[in-house]
Amino acid sequence: MLAIEIKAPDLTQTTSSEAIAKLLQVLPHVLSYATSFIVIGVIWINHHALFHFIKRVDRTILVINLLLLMCVAFISYPTALIGEYGSSLPVVVFYGLSLAITGFAHNALWFYVLHRYLKTEITIHQTVVQKATVWTLSYPISYLVAAGLAFMSLNLSIILYALIPTFYLLPGIIDKQLIKQA
Amino acid sequence: MLAIEIKAPDLTQTTSSEAIAKLLQVLPHVLSYATSFIVIGVIWINHHALFHFIKRVDRTILVINLLLLMCVAFISYPTALIGEYGSSLPVVVFYGLSLAITGFAHNALWFYVLHRYLKTEITIHQTVVQKATVWTLSYPISYLVAAGLAFMSLNLSIILYALIPTFYLLPGIIDKQLIKQA
Amino acid sequence: MLAIEIKAPDLTQTTSSEAIAKLLQVLPHVLSYATSFIVIGVIWINHHALFHFIKRVDRTILVINLLLLMCVAFISYPTALIGEYGSSLPVVVFYGLSLAITGFAHNALWFYVLHRYLKTEITIHQTVVQKATVWTLSYPISYLVAAGLAFMSLNLSIILYALIPTFYLLPGIIDKQLIKQA
Amino acid sequence: MLAIEIKAPDLTQTTSSEAIAKLLQVLPHVLSYATSFIVIGVIWINHHALFHFIKRVDRTILVINLLLLMCVAFISYPTALIGEYGSSLPVVVFYGLSLAITGFAHNALWFYVLHRYLKTEITIHQTVVQKATVWTLSYPISYLVAAGLAFMSLNLSIILYALIPTFYLLPGIIDKQLIKQA
Repeated sequence: MLAIEIKAPDLTQTTSSEAIAKLLQVLPHVLSYATSFIVIGVIWINHHALFHFIKRVDRTILVINLLLLMCVAFISYPTALIGEYGSSLPVVVFYGLSLAITGFAHNALWFYVLHRYLKTEITIHQTVVQKATVWTLSYPISYLVAAGLAFMSLNLSIILYALIPTFYLLPGIIDKQLIKQA
Repeated sequence: MLAIEIKAPDLTQTTSSEAIAKLLQVLPHVLSYATSFIVIGVIWINHHALFHFIKRVDRTILVINLLLLMCVAFISYPTALIGEYGSSLPVVVFYGLSLAITGFAHNALWFYVLHRYLKTEITIHQTVVQKATVWTLSYPISYLVAAGLAFMSLNLSIILYALIPTFYLLPGIIDKQLIKQA
Repeated sequence: MLAIEIKAPDLTQTTSSEAIAKLLQVLPHVLSYATSFIVIGVIWINHHALFHFIKRVDRTILVINLLLLMCVAFISYPTALIGEYGSSLPVVVFYGLSLAITGFAHNALWFYVLHRYLKTEITIHQTVVQKATVWTLSYPISYLVAAGLAFMSLNLSIILYALIPTFYLLPGIIDKQLIKQA
Repeated sequence: MLAIEIKAPDLTQTTSSEAIAKLLQVLPHVLSYATSFIVIGVIWINHHALFHFIKRVDRTILVINLLLLMCVAFISYPTALIGEYGSSLPVVVFYGLSLAITGFAHNALWFYVLHRYLKTEITIHQTVVQKATVWTLSYPISYLVAAGLAFMSLNLSIILYALIPTFYLLPGIIDKQLIKQA
């Protein structure tokens, strides 16, 4: 995995208040790190829910998983960038696009599982499948939109980047269906 | 995960005794690293014991786990800081607060499991649950107190930071109850 | 594991177009990283398929696995090098040789499993085993050939490095046999 | 885990032969890395064999495991040091001591499992247990001896460091007993 490294600030010969100020300068890094962590966590949690429907881990799933893992591992790079240069338009757009691509990789897994395993499940309603598809697709699309809004306001983009995954921490449509069936 | 990197000291053109002196300068880093490792380890061991009571990994547990994992992964940063600047008040307080927050994240898991799964267990005595709750809560609170004592003495704080987790390596109340029931 | 670290470019006091140009300079790193990731992923996927035939993880398998893991963990080093110095002949050859050696380590696992476990399986045709052996051996040999072609054209080598694993993402001979038998 | 970082050499404006020379300068790092990897691997493999005898992962095992893991994670630091300063006596001794301490941590696990679980196993001969104990203890003691020999010859120590684990890759006494019983 690509490592994120937050450089420790130089605190030699500083007063306490200067040290606090320098420590607070790291805050954007911490926020970008927390955002990326939750984004990846949301994908991981939904991944977990999705695997309830998979009977046998076939080669296609392994390949999609590999691409997803590659995207996830790569995210540390735009995360470090936006933590350092949060006021640079290309960096903010690049961060949003990276999260969007990772979301699309996760979508690929959903669509594969849907067509290969869920189509034959009579117990699952078509409306549930449709809602879950919209819910899943809206994740990367939200990041595309948030990345696009960076041309208007960088701060708006950054706030949206952090807000989007929190919606997905709530129980999703797939989970609710699972609970109903249990 | 955030990587902790201990910079290798420059040992070119040094005598053996100078090299030993330079290697010993790394000692604070090693101590802070060991402390953080044991703190995380204690949480992991108690985590292990806690999961005996969980019937099904539900979404709430996944979300709390995600936040806990985020705290754990973040700890490497204050660890690197206190290893470098152990005589800086803000750094020592920051380290203690980070460990306290991680402890509270772990507490959240305990309280969730308690209310969702243990309340219905007739076999577990209410007094055991109360003792375990006090035991669990006292972990992050000890770190808050130790962080507060840094305003009196930095060394006292650092010694407490290292001592607190060793108490929790002893068999906990949840474990003892588990053994009794087995 | 050896960590790959992509240095964030210095974007202070740059215009948007300069920032984009600097971000694009990281592209070779991203490509070399993606290539290595897929190479390791292919080995992991085939590893997964191979373990279907293993009844008990014996000590020889653990030792080969250890050597394979060591090669895999080492790959990050030539990956970082080729990302930085893609126009240096020794670096390009070194990268190819590292991937070839990793492939041979994986081959060792295949040959061991073949002689220890598959020889006694009556259900598997000898022709299938032969095809799978050729398929497996051709992986590291392709990297040797690609590394050799670097003396003619560096770009040809680099393109081949990236193309070779994509062939192996397709269902392999072992998998097809497995599906037939299921 | 502490990250080992091998700095990529600066290959800008070098001829092919200069680049090769610079790449070869990294060789000591690669050797120290490989040695540490195999040392940790040997412990991991024996760990694997040992866990066959453990009925329930109890708290003591978790605590010893935690200390073992801490030692293992720490090894990357002396590894990076000896790769850089292989001709410095304190560094070579430090490396050997680190490996010895890690070995003793693993021994603690062996002695615990022996007294807690194996004493009651009637099927295992006392002579087998004694041989296995000598075999296990001789691992860290060999590293102590090799570290001591550094005062005579640094190269002798380094060669021994690399040779010792290879002996332990051969099937151990615990394994042979396991195979006999199967």
